[in-house]
Amino acid sequence: MNNLISKIPQTDKPRIVIVGGGFAGLKLAMKLSKSGFQIILLDKNNYHQFQPLFYQVATAGLEPSSISFPLRKIFQKHENIHFRVAELQSIDVSKKEIITNIGRLAYQYLVLALGADTNFYGMKDIETNAIPMKSTPEALFIRNTILMNYETAVNIDDRDEETALMNIVIVGGGPTGVELAGALAEMRKYVLPKDYPELDFTNMKIYLLEANSRLLKTMKERSSKRALKYLENLGVNVRLNASVKTFDGGTVSLTDGTLFRTRTLLWAAGIKANEIEGLQPELYGPGRRLLVNEYLQIESHPEIFVMGDMALLRSEDYPNGHPQVAQAAIQQARLIAKNLVRAGKGKQMLGFNYKDKGSLATIGRNMGVADLPGISLFGFTAWFVWIFVHLMAILGQKNKLLIFINWLWNYFTYDQSLRLILRQVQYKQNKTHE
Amino acid sequence: MNNLISKIPQTDKPRIVIVGGGFAGLKLAMKLSKSGFQIILLDKNNYHQFQPLFYQVATAGLEPSSISFPLRKIFQKHENIHFRVAELQSIDVSKKEIITNIGRLAYQYLVLALGADTNFYGMKDIETNAIPMKSTPEALFIRNTILMNYETAVNIDDRDEETALMNIVIVGGGPTGVELAGALAEMRKYVLPKDYPELDFTNMKIYLLEANSRLLKTMKERSSKRALKYLENLGVNVRLNASVKTFDGGTVSLTDGTLFRTRTLLWAAGIKANEIEGLQPELYGPGRRLLVNEYLQIESHPEIFVMGDMALLRSEDYPNGHPQVAQAAIQQARLIAKNLVRAGKGKQMLGFNYKDKGSLATIGRNMGVADLPGISLFGFTAWFVWIFVHLMAILGQKNKLLIFINWLWNYFTYDQSLRLILRQVQYKQNKTHE
Repeated sequence: MNNLISKIPQTDKPRIVIVGGGFAGLKLAMKLSKSGFQIILLDKNNYHQFQPLFYQVATAGLEPSSISFPLRKIFQKHENIHFRVAELQSIDVSKKEIITNIGRLAYQYLVLALGADTNFYGMKDIETNAIPMKSTPEALFIRNTILMNYETAVNIDDRDEETALMNIVIVGGGPTGVELAGALAEMRKYVLPKDYPELDFTNMKIYLLEANSRLLKTMKERSSKRALKYLENLGVNVRLNASVKTFDGGTVSLTDGTLFRTRTLLWAAGIKANEIEGLQPELYGPGRRLLVNEYLQIESHPEIFVMGDMALLRSEDYPNGHPQVAQAAIQQARLIAKNLVRAGKGKQMLGFNYKDKGSLATIGRNMGVADLPGISLFGFTAWFVWIFVHLMAILGQKNKLLIFINWLWNYFTYDQSLRLILRQVQYKQNKTHE
Repeated sequence: MNNLISKIPQTDKPRIVIVGGGFAGLKLAMKLSKSGFQIILLDKNNYHQFQPLFYQVATAGLEPSSISFPLRKIFQKHENIHFRVAELQSIDVSKKEIITNIGRLAYQYLVLALGADTNFYGMKDIETNAIPMKSTPEALFIRNTILMNYETAVNIDDRDEETALMNIVIVGGGPTGVELAGALAEMRKYVLPKDYPELDFTNMKIYLLEANSRLLKTMKERSSKRALKYLENLGVNVRLNASVKTFDGGTVSLTDGTLFRTRTLLWAAGIKANEIEGLQPELYGPGRRLLVNEYLQIESHPEIFVMGDMALLRSEDYPNGHPQVAQAAIQQARLIAKNLVRAGKGKQMLGFNYKDKGSLATIGRNMGVADLPGISLFGFTAWFVWIFVHLMAILGQKNKLLIFINWLWNYFTYDQSLRLILRQVQYKQNKTHE
């Protein structure tokens, strides 16, 4: 693709190209929409994804559409924002131009907010056989896979294979792994035995493996312990200090020699930032994050900003960078918006100061843990705060309402009802867009 | 697969095998669940689909899950009903046994309710390039395709190709085609121009082609005329007496030589019943429907019943069989349930009498047509009746509530908000179930 991206108006406004419509990219575009810049936002999907609730899509509690919001709809009334479904292929830093699958685009400012993808730490067999959960389609894929495995288990007489189809192993004891394990344990308790009376659910094991000595290691020790207790009460087999070595699609082996039979390995053990062609290797830090200064600029290319999971800003309080969470991404977007406006007025930019507003995780009904500034909450209170915070954070009034109804319904009926194996139709046409 | 389907209990109850979990199959299973039969229901999906609302999934108004209901959930409290995701491969009428992809199964009674699939009338190029809408995934595929075509249209400079990507041609002026055309015309009016300010929507044409001399030919003449008027008011180009000859994926040609440029041909022009191996060719009538007697049995195999779109019962009032609609399927299921119970008691079976409860179609907001017994309704009244009837018919209280909220929301905001291009993750594993 050597042409320019078409139908982008030429104006005398300075152009900011934002790549990625996650928490950071979306916030930045909205903050700057009336500030005299021309804003072009690119994302590989036509929707914004609310990542904290992927696990509820994976466990049949919420619809994909409740946590995915069409970007064009968000930008309808913002004529300075131009959106394209596009994938970044490389950056030509000398020409100040990006190359995408739909054409080239020049920028005055470039903001990289592509987020992170699953990190399999180079283990090819796990990449092939395990299932990650870093996108709405991947979450749906988990739902489909688990349900299909149960439909298969009903049809076989081989007891060992039946167990492998029923067992679920989750790797990674961060919030994603903990929340997935809790939700699956509740499905085992309230839903699956009623759906599959043919199967013996004393057979079904849910393992949660964490390489560290505790779960939720970014939270307070007491919260970690409480989460562990909740999970064990729900019957999850939590293994701490457990590292996965191999997975062939049927058996997981740990470095200590333990073996688990399972067809379903859910991988929530780590992320790495998305790679970008055209940036020198020395610009990257650990986890493939891009090293930035306190203004979140790449030092050698100050017209390029980085935010969210991709940015690595080393500071005294955070020598390894800020946590790769929504809060950090949103605060960074706010600062970059402010700084670009300041820069336009010839003012000095402000440095980034991360304000940790706390962490939350929910394990099951009435069971959550929350480390808020100055206070830790557990059980029902933490669970309730979690619900409130997530309902407030989700985009769109209709989504808030529909999610709330779904949660209320599931709460009172003990039932996650979206147990559909929805397979997609394959493209059979030679469409121009494929 | 030569084994028996596993985990089906051997009982002394007579076994009824129902193939197909549509309106008819589901109704029959529920009616018989407490009648002393062992019931085995097979469907290729794990969910029941509410076909009358496919068009709202295709036009981003409803979620797939709102119109798809997990069959295992429906059967949770019915221990006489055993469900399997399975595809019927053939029938061995002499052994009274069916062969499926998950194994063999003997029956005392077999009830065929596999419904119908799209009929392309042997036109291979149309089968390859057009999009049918006979399943939830196909409806989702339409949504994805239309949205992707618009994203592509934004990126190109070729005006002719842009027009082809924006135009939509619908073939078939039955309820499906009429409702699709109306919903797409409303998207063009209220939604798409706001989402795609880059595009010129005076360019976008929606064609509805009908081979007959009127739309909705099963309805009263006055209703047909009214539907035509509503569609024309919405800016749909309706062509009556128009037959499609070819479609190469970019241009549709009619038998009269007319050409339309489009990348999107939606095919709602006809159905044919699903074929079954093992039944003699002389058992089939037109549209591949199976000929049945007044008890809905195959005359030469009275232990095999047929119902819904597959059944062809010729009667004085309906010399070409009953209309292939939900009402007929449900009434047939009710009769077969009653007759099987009667047969068990040694009583004479009752013949089928179709009671036409009327037809409804909705064209757009406040615009419907309804032929009810003794009265025809138009406009707002018909539209309101349509909403009421469909809300009552949909399964599940939560679905009713969520659909109602979606409709209310869309009505007041003039917005169908589910405009997500959700592509599915491809299987990369060598899973046992694939």
